[in-house]
Amino acid sequence: MPTDLVAALDIGGTKIAGALVDGRGRILLRAQRPTPAREDGDTVMRAVEEVLGELTAGEPWGLVRAVGIGSAGPVDASAGTVSPVNVPGWRDYPLVERVRSAAGGRPVELVGDGVAMTAAEHWQGAARGHDNALCMVVSTGVGGGLILDGSLHPGPTGNAGHIGHISVDLDGDPCPCGGRGCVERIASGPNIARRALENGWLPGADGDTSAAAVARTARAGDPVAVASFDRAAKALAAGIAATATLVEIDIAVIGGGVAMAGDLLFAPLRRALREYATLSFVGGLTVAPALMGTDAGLVGAAAAALRAFPDAAVGQLRPVANH
Amino acid sequence: MPTDLVAALDIGGTKIAGALVDGRGRILLRAQRPTPAREDGDTVMRAVEEVLGELTAGEPWGLVRAVGIGSAGPVDASAGTVSPVNVPGWRDYPLVERVRSAAGGRPVELVGDGVAMTAAEHWQGAARGHDNALCMVVSTGVGGGLILDGSLHPGPTGNAGHIGHISVDLDGDPCPCGGRGCVERIASGPNIARRALENGWLPGADGDTSAAAVARTARAGDPVAVASFDRAAKALAAGIAATATLVEIDIAVIGGGVAMAGDLLFAPLRRALREYATLSFVGGLTVAPALMGTDAGLVGAAAAALRAFPDAAVGQLRPVANH
Repeated sequence: MPTDLVAALDIGGTKIAGALVDGRGRILLRAQRPTPAREDGDTVMRAVEEVLGELTAGEPWGLVRAVGIGSAGPVDASAGTVSPVNVPGWRDYPLVERVRSAAGGRPVELVGDGVAMTAAEHWQGAARGHDNALCMVVSTGVGGGLILDGSLHPGPTGNAGHIGHISVDLDGDPCPCGGRGCVERIASGPNIARRALENGWLPGADGDTSAAAVARTARAGDPVAVASFDRAAKALAAGIAATATLVEIDIAVIGGGVAMAGDLLFAPLRRALREYATLSFVGGLTVAPALMGTDAGLVGAAAAALRAFPDAAVGQLRPVANH
Repeated sequence: MPTDLVAALDIGGTKIAGALVDGRGRILLRAQRPTPAREDGDTVMRAVEEVLGELTAGEPWGLVRAVGIGSAGPVDASAGTVSPVNVPGWRDYPLVERVRSAAGGRPVELVGDGVAMTAAEHWQGAARGHDNALCMVVSTGVGGGLILDGSLHPGPTGNAGHIGHISVDLDGDPCPCGGRGCVERIASGPNIARRALENGWLPGADGDTSAAAVARTARAGDPVAVASFDRAAKALAAGIAATATLVEIDIAVIGGGVAMAGDLLFAPLRRALREYATLSFVGGLTVAPALMGTDAGLVGAAAAALRAFPDAAVGQLRPVANH
């Protein structure tokens, strides 16, 4: 029987996933609900409580010493609140307090989803063994997190590593965040597709205008499609190089749907990185695809909890009152 | 008599300064030589040894437990070497070993000059009390350093915080570092002056074409001069916002000659920061002028040594063999 368990919650705009995870990162029990993202905040919370209810119902729950949450952002770990862009019913929602209450008073660690993914890649994935790393997801949005001096660096509010909203083009297009020329505004999947369409790219007979469709035609040699991926790669390279120059990382790990394009993204990205990462101390910087897949959020939330509460004693926890 | 002393060296392209500094940051003894920057490496080292010789000659030297070096970059703290751009005789020069030998085997901590300045501002200056800060020098070049989670973050090679060479304009002008659109390429003093001249600014009767001269005419209302400072402020704002978004700092401290322009720089900088620092968790970011002046390098090198060797016992050190 494992003696060192944490509960993990991965909260996104589409689904709420939960798991019990052991000290080696193995998932013992899973639960999941769709996110009622258009409903009021209490309804969303009930879905979280249903997930937690499945986790607390079994015998292993008695061995759980802490709960880790990776949530769509923005989060505020210092206040214990979340305001996910895609869940309008939650604004400064006191998620940490509610989860602690539903988890029998166990300590709760909250981080942003980019930070959680980073914790997972450092623990078990492509950043394993690297003391200084940037991990990122390039998908509908662009998020990330940092490992510094061998440890997760969530920052005071749990949001550090937000590479999607640094400007690499100070005169560039306005970004929905209010800034200009953000990495996400250039490199996210929807922006890769938008730029291709604006430059005359035409979808196939299926009418698919996703970045994946642009990638398919790029592989077949469509120059407009290739150019749109090249531009995304350049923005990612400038952002990754900036991060390395600021905090000395030696690897950037990239996951998410856009990273599935493989060499179509990674080849121009590695070329562009040589253009932007020029100082001697960032000369060894490499780029690698993420390895953790869809469990990254759960495993990373567990890692964050284990890191935050290395010594929480199970025996000192109150029993769960109602479940 | 103070019981907790370190020696500090501040090595630049113009001068080599040294001091004995106590545990409260007070400078007890100073020494200085011009940097023989065009001479061979051994000649430069002899100037360092002369400075150290003045420090080791007196009785307080017996209480010195470590040496801190802040050097013009690039440095490589992991290898103990320096390769200052403006000192061509030193390339991968084993400065740490040489200084250790000249300092009776005392432990030596090496950081870049931007990191040293940051340590000083955090210890005694404008970043005091801030657990997460960017400190920077805007002068002939643009350098910086980071305080994260309450501590100096030099990075593995002592170069972290190199904000001058992050790109904020990925299609921008080539920078001497090999990149494009770097903060330094837009915001350094020489680039402020260059841009003003290119846009039709004319120097006064004294022929002074420095950034300080541009600042004087800007204060008198010259629109080209004002525009050049505005552009520098915008690039600095984009770089500072990127840093805050990546690592969650709450203050940026700015020193160096260009910061002496005061509101001419700080007013447009604060305006532009609102444009680029848009996410909720960076909403409280502020900007402040540096306070430590010309002693920042020495005090910061001392701070870095005290941080790196908190427990070095004076009694265990070998005596200085020859001085």
